[in-house]
Amino acid sequence: MKGLSVLGSTGSIGIQTLEIVRLHPELFKISALAAGSNLDLLERQVREFHPSLVACRTEAAAKELTKRLQDYSQPLWIGHSADGLVEAATAPDAELVIGGLPGSTGLKPAFAAVEAGKNLALATKEVLVMAGRLFMNTVRKHRVTLLPVDSEQSAVFQCLRGNPSAEIRRIILTASGGPFRDLSQSELNKVSREQALCHPRWRMGPKVTVDSATLMNKGLEVIETRWLFNVPAHKIEVVIHPQSIVHSMVEFMDGSILAQLGATDMRIPISYALAFPERIPSGTQPLSFPELSSLTFREPDIDKFPLLRAAYQALEDGGVCAPIVLNAADEVAVELFLAGKIPFALISRIVLESLDTIPHQSVESLDEIVEFHEDVVSRVRSRWGTDLE
Amino acid sequence: MKGLSVLGSTGSIGIQTLEIVRLHPELFKISALAAGSNLDLLERQVREFHPSLVACRTEAAAKELTKRLQDYSQPLWIGHSADGLVEAATAPDAELVIGGLPGSTGLKPAFAAVEAGKNLALATKEVLVMAGRLFMNTVRKHRVTLLPVDSEQSAVFQCLRGNPSAEIRRIILTASGGPFRDLSQSELNKVSREQALCHPRWRMGPKVTVDSATLMNKGLEVIETRWLFNVPAHKIEVVIHPQSIVHSMVEFMDGSILAQLGATDMRIPISYALAFPERIPSGTQPLSFPELSSLTFREPDIDKFPLLRAAYQALEDGGVCAPIVLNAADEVAVELFLAGKIPFALISRIVLESLDTIPHQSVESLDEIVEFHEDVVSRVRSRWGTDLE
Repeated sequence: MKGLSVLGSTGSIGIQTLEIVRLHPELFKISALAAGSNLDLLERQVREFHPSLVACRTEAAAKELTKRLQDYSQPLWIGHSADGLVEAATAPDAELVIGGLPGSTGLKPAFAAVEAGKNLALATKEVLVMAGRLFMNTVRKHRVTLLPVDSEQSAVFQCLRGNPSAEIRRIILTASGGPFRDLSQSELNKVSREQALCHPRWRMGPKVTVDSATLMNKGLEVIETRWLFNVPAHKIEVVIHPQSIVHSMVEFMDGSILAQLGATDMRIPISYALAFPERIPSGTQPLSFPELSSLTFREPDIDKFPLLRAAYQALEDGGVCAPIVLNAADEVAVELFLAGKIPFALISRIVLESLDTIPHQSVESLDEIVEFHEDVVSRVRSRWGTDLE
Repeated sequence: MKGLSVLGSTGSIGIQTLEIVRLHPELFKISALAAGSNLDLLERQVREFHPSLVACRTEAAAKELTKRLQDYSQPLWIGHSADGLVEAATAPDAELVIGGLPGSTGLKPAFAAVEAGKNLALATKEVLVMAGRLFMNTVRKHRVTLLPVDSEQSAVFQCLRGNPSAEIRRIILTASGGPFRDLSQSELNKVSREQALCHPRWRMGPKVTVDSATLMNKGLEVIETRWLFNVPAHKIEVVIHPQSIVHSMVEFMDGSILAQLGATDMRIPISYALAFPERIPSGTQPLSFPELSSLTFREPDIDKFPLLRAAYQALEDGGVCAPIVLNAADEVAVELFLAGKIPFALISRIVLESLDTIPHQSVESLDEIVEFHEDVVSRVRSRWGTDLE
């Protein structure tokens, strides 16, 4: 039995992780759960999966959960806040931590898990975007296995299995292109919040859905890929593939390309990470190739979607700061867009202007990274967060 | 330096093998060459690659080559006929044998190589079609590595690397569908020899090109796949993919599919087999996904191309004889078609009728397999080889 700690258990990754655990009760047990504000679901998860530890986002939530579980007789420790997350990430009987927390919240627990010697199935891309080099050094130092839980990175990981990275010629990340891939620049300026939240292929949280519409999501994945597989940015290529059947590819030095394909169903990369180095049924339906529409590929339009180019530039800078600025500015810009305070087209402008204007600092440790991130967030909020036009 | 013995050095696989050797003189040396009637090319190959052993098809050819090489001063043993092939397949300083001999000629040398403990890069599909179980048992007994040199089987082999075969849900072999995939039955009855020899994607020898047009080639590959990867026939699926970019795929039990893609260039599977377990540059151009036309897939029409279905049935029989009959009858039928003696549509009829009418025998050893094959060949020749209509 592999003990799992599921960080973000009531989010999309957490829910699907528990679906797979439900299919394989003989393989997995839940050691710890950590969740935000959805106490109804968290309570049900506790009663079903019997973790020995639960972390809530706030002290109030922890108290409320304790009250709700008065009739629950099994041993359970309920923590909260940042410390609670770290407790969950380092739960003694967890062998694998599933890092499904949203955004920068996931950063410190990911480091804590790795430093405690846990293998980590990582869905939070901000960890590698904000702290790529430091995090990978930590992973190597503690000799843990880092498993990507993301359809693209899992695809690359699967394609690389059994092939040393020295033989990579290119990593080809596929992108659906988001809901606006076929709009003109002027149409793009007019899209609504509802249109941006309607992804053609994947059902995901609002932040990543908007990031798909701007191609920022693919930009963040380029940065993730650079660190995860230790390849320079110029060996990472993005290709628009509207059908999202080919999840990504690796071209080797002999001209051979391996691709991972499948349904647009996150249970495939999640089950791969849970069972690694083995494979287990994930509950997904097999693809029928004759039933597929044709698979098409085209170059991304980086003039229309400048945030993808900005991600490459942030990497080429070589410094630690640019990706942090990129990520933090995007976090604020998307938040403002989702709150109805700015139009869609302003998201890119905010990020690009932040990259141009926010001065870099000497940033090395995890604390300095978090501090710089928060500094950028507050600068961008104060510059753009008031009513616009 | 890996010593190579190239069987069929003047054929398509042999020539491309030597192209790769030429790119990597620091990695490979040629221990032995074996070839048929193209003495001009064989002579040039000897002078360029300096094998210590050469095998010619006939004694006369060996004498002619000896005469031509009177001025050649390096040590060279020149053999001929079946014994010469076996000498080449077991050359002491060869670590890897490239089995590129055409048709049933390749059978005994492949066994000889494996029995001598050589790793084998096998292009001759007849070895697995005619003697699948016996051959794989021999490979296991002598603990050698068998590497497929065939775009489809190499694709499957690459996709399986690092994944145990117990986790396979399906192997999906792609087929270009050949030049006649879009013809109606009545158009199919009228195709000429020239039309059948014009393959839309791959440049290959005449036998395999005609086999592509009847889908017999894919049927033979289904049988090959069954033995090479030890999967039952019902787990092997064929899908028509006219662009021939996806060379084949493996679906695993978690719903994840790995595919190998690349240019339609045999140097990719050849270089993979030569360098295994590493990869080396193969001299091929990288694929540009945005430049690709779309990739399409559809089911094969087994009513129009009944030889594909016949291959499945030959496997389901479970016996040793049916695949031998299928292969031998097809060999004769294609020979008659290429000689202009029968129309295209008769190829299937000859093979199907042979399967129905030729009685099975108890066939176990390699000699019995060869004898039965020759018996089928002469029966089919005497039944159909006289002038028709």
